[in-house]
Amino acid sequence: MTQLADTPQPPYYAVIFTSLRKVGDNGYAEMAARMLELAAQQAGFLGVESAREDVGITVSYWADLESIKHWKANAEHQQARRLGHEQWYSAFKVRIARVEHDYGIAE
Amino acid sequence: MTQLADTPQPPYYAVIFTSLRKVGDNGYAEMAARMLELAAQQAGFLGVESAREDVGITVSYWADLESIKHWKANAEHQQARRLGHEQWYSAFKVRIARVEHDYGIAE
Repeated sequence: MTQLADTPQPPYYAVIFTSLRKVGDNGYAEMAARMLELAAQQAGFLGVESAREDVGITVSYWADLESIKHWKANAEHQQARRLGHEQWYSAFKVRIARVEHDYGIAE
Repeated sequence: MTQLADTPQPPYYAVIFTSLRKVGDNGYAEMAARMLELAAQQAGFLGVESAREDVGITVSYWADLESIKHWKANAEHQQARRLGHEQWYSAFKVRIARVEHDYGIAE
């Protein structure tokens, strides 16, 4: 992840996923990369930004709530979430938010 | 930053600030810590999560748009933003979003 997401004019949606990891990889890195790849193929996907220090933050951007719902229902994504709950995360939070306004400077 | 933000039931607001840094600290770490401290003192502040790898992501949570507007108008914060544009960031984006739904597991 080396760029900021190039999102369109609002409104659009953000899924803010924050987490604390358990110790050990246990297949996490591979699955995380696969989920980014798979998410990017979904209808309505607009971009993603991700970083981890003590807390991990992944913000994915979507055209509408319907796209988020479809992604949540994806079978491979569901399996990854199950593993996440069982093996990788000691705590996590998912926040679904409607982006109403944005501004910034591009490189 | 070692915990997930303990936010109330939605709706509330998120300010998603993502950035790419220029090389060199130039006072950045000190100012970033000061801004987190100052933000936490503002009316309507609900919490913050922050991580940086290639991309830096700071998500702050607020009770309403009015609180975000007041924080944006804070003189010390304005000065920090000016320095950010001039010295620290090669690119950044600020997204103001209304959190409509959330779920997760706590530690």
